Amino acid sequence: MTIESRSMAALDPADLDARDALAFHRERYIIPQGVIYLDGNSLGPASHAALTGLETAAKEEWAEGLIRSWNTAGWFDLSLATGNRIAPLIGAAAGQVVVCDTVTLNLYKVLHAALAMQAGRRVIVAEAGSFPTDLYIAEGVASTLPGVTIRLVGRDADTFEELIDEQTAVVLINHVDYRTGLLQDMARVTARAHKAGALVVWDLCHSAGALPIALDECKADFAVGCTYKYLNGGPGAQAFVYAAGRHHDKLKQPLSGWWGHARPFEFETSYAPSPGMRMFLTGTQGILSLRALAGALDNWKDVDLQALRHKSLQLTQYFMDLVAEQCAGFGLECITPRQDKLRGSQVSLRFEHAYPAMQALIARGVIGDFRAPDIMRFGFTPLYIGFADVSRAVAILKDILQTEAWKDPAFSTRASVT
Amino acid sequence: MTIESRSMAALDPADLDARDALAFHRERYIIPQGVIYLDGNSLGPASHAALTGLETAAKEEWAEGLIRSWNTAGWFDLSLATGNRIAPLIGAAAGQVVVCDTVTLNLYKVLHAALAMQAGRRVIVAEAGSFPTDLYIAEGVASTLPGVTIRLVGRDADTFEELIDEQTAVVLINHVDYRTGLLQDMARVTARAHKAGALVVWDLCHSAGALPIALDECKADFAVGCTYKYLNGGPGAQAFVYAAGRHHDKLKQPLSGWWGHARPFEFETSYAPSPGMRMFLTGTQGILSLRALAGALDNWKDVDLQALRHKSLQLTQYFMDLVAEQCAGFGLECITPRQDKLRGSQVSLRFEHAYPAMQALIARGVIGDFRAPDIMRFGFTPLYIGFADVSRAVAILKDILQTEAWKDPAFSTRASVT
Repeated sequence: MTIESRSMAALDPADLDARDALAFHRERYIIPQGVIYLDGNSLGPASHAALTGLETAAKEEWAEGLIRSWNTAGWFDLSLATGNRIAPLIGAAAGQVVVCDTVTLNLYKVLHAALAMQAGRRVIVAEAGSFPTDLYIAEGVASTLPGVTIRLVGRDADTFEELIDEQTAVVLINHVDYRTGLLQDMARVTARAHKAGALVVWDLCHSAGALPIALDECKADFAVGCTYKYLNGGPGAQAFVYAAGRHHDKLKQPLSGWWGHARPFEFETSYAPSPGMRMFLTGTQGILSLRALAGALDNWKDVDLQALRHKSLQLTQYFMDLVAEQCAGFGLECITPRQDKLRGSQVSLRFEHAYPAMQALIARGVIGDFRAPDIMRFGFTPLYIGFADVSRAVAILKDILQTEAWKDPAFSTRASVT
Repeated sequence: MTIESRSMAALDPADLDARDALAFHRERYIIPQGVIYLDGNSLGPASHAALTGLETAAKEEWAEGLIRSWNTAGWFDLSLATGNRIAPLIGAAAGQVVVCDTVTLNLYKVLHAALAMQAGRRVIVAEAGSFPTDLYIAEGVASTLPGVTIRLVGRDADTFEELIDEQTAVVLINHVDYRTGLLQDMARVTARAHKAGALVVWDLCHSAGALPIALDECKADFAVGCTYKYLNGGPGAQAFVYAAGRHHDKLKQPLSGWWGHARPFEFETSYAPSPGMRMFLTGTQGILSLRALAGALDNWKDVDLQALRHKSLQLTQYFMDLVAEQCAGFGLECITPRQDKLRGSQVSLRFEHAYPAMQALIARGVIGDFRAPDIMRFGFTPLYIGFADVSRAVAILKDILQTEAWKDPAFSTRASVT
């Protein structure tokens, strides 16, 4: 029995906070008074560094520098420079990551790139439980390439092992499941796919910034991910895309815009892709969003990713243990794995009245989110969440369940939520 | 002989400024001390409204509202709402414009949509002198659709008339040429294409916000355009896309992401496109950039587009007349049409030493831009440029030519420029 498998429910949150080596990060983030923010896995909070980066970009670079800032403020290289700053956070050597567009669009590029490298193989293997946009854009790719089909784990078979075969061109897999928080074994799945001759695209949306990732070490082929969740880059900040250096001379993707051209300012009539990661660029990027992200990344310079992972696992286990102890008998079901190596940085509770219960929590300052049809999802972000936050969140949850506060009709009106 | 064809060179700029009905707009924009900004056709300047919108988005909506702002601050509908605010500026009824992604990506969507509507027709007609990204992304579209070919005016024939035939699926045309400033006749070209059964995509990058546009009236099919040039939305602000309402029930495009889904928050496994313009959305948009744009659009509520066009034509003519009078004999060639109906809101001068001469101008505060191989380009934006600015810019240009200031070696090092 490891220490993690013993219940933490009896531990004193003040003691745990006092021993938290990451506590000093918290003051860098802006958490509104009275809020326990357990939704950093959906939208990370603002930080002073991000707001400073944004303000510099707006008031100095744009307003004063005007067009000159493309050169003088480094805007033109910002996508690549920012990619190189994210690279160490996901286990990638420099020159393999670029920040641009959205996860959806970057998936379109890498799926096309992977299929172009896999002559004769026409199957994309993905997960029925994938974050949906991955499946939607895989459908989009398939709609443009004759003969490409999509097979899903959880629909066409139970496991990746059963589905990956000599027809598989590429495996598209979520590193952490957005609903359950299940963490995949990157080394194992990648090796299994490679053994069958398939390439792998990792969706890191729910793992980048939440735990150490070793793309290069695992020999991953491609990856995409969010910057506005655990990396706290700002609402809708550009996504990142990774391609292993060994594939760079074979890359080809159809979203061929001038920013990806080998010589964009020669204004040539025909497209000639840039060498390296720049070929994933399309058009002019939203610099204000990108500069907020660049500011947010200043906060990552001194983050110990091993310590981050350790605290993340403690936070999620503490939450699960407290819920198990204090909220028993109300029909909650924890669908997040208890085993450390299978768990990301979130906990999801299935509950028949998940929607109004989450609204009631939010009204009391505990911000998590709802995922259809019946999931309350809580993200635990070690840089600004402490153990007292966890303890208090569970106490409020218990109170809402005991008093049936979620029955208030005000909490049942369903708005679009993200 | 119309008044426009007489030289304006002898007119007093102070008189012209005194009679300028649009002068009151200028104080809304931030133009640095000592700068005459003739590059608003590349990157529009910041305005107080844009910076206020951005600050509200960052400090209130993001930092305080956090995830709740997707609903409470209208983020989720911001792409459509912002599209509806741009619609009147381009002659489009509501519900036909959405703001998202980049021009390049939006072209990919509409070219695919147009080709999907044109069974049996496989030719894209475009311009050899097009802004290059339009051609690059047309190549990208062709790379995913068997049999699609691209024919170019200026390479495969001299005129659109010669190229458009019964094989033409779609015509992709720049409303204003980015180099010469040539303005196309939207009604005429659209009618000509329709007569041959082709659809038309208008690239409005260099006309939106520069002159009145009548997409609906001209029966245009699709359009895309920039928001960071004449609309002053901020560096890399999202692009807009227009699709005529009559086509909405036939729209189909392969960049199928969750934001374009009919029910994004049901997290369904299969893609089902939203009705209407929302189907052009892909992934989460950079909200900070989008809110700066939304702020910038506040300044357009009371802009009289006819007055804007009148002043624009006066500014460009005044510049051309002054250059003709004061800078004769230095080898400058004006490649922008003199005829009002053929001219956008910019003037381009061909000059053997265009690059160092433009650098010398910028060093003296006159900011235009260089377009390879030998063009000095000057944009005239009626909301914040006056006639005294034009007069002073030409005086400085004359001085640089007379003193051969452009020979300074400091001006010959070529950086990437936009």
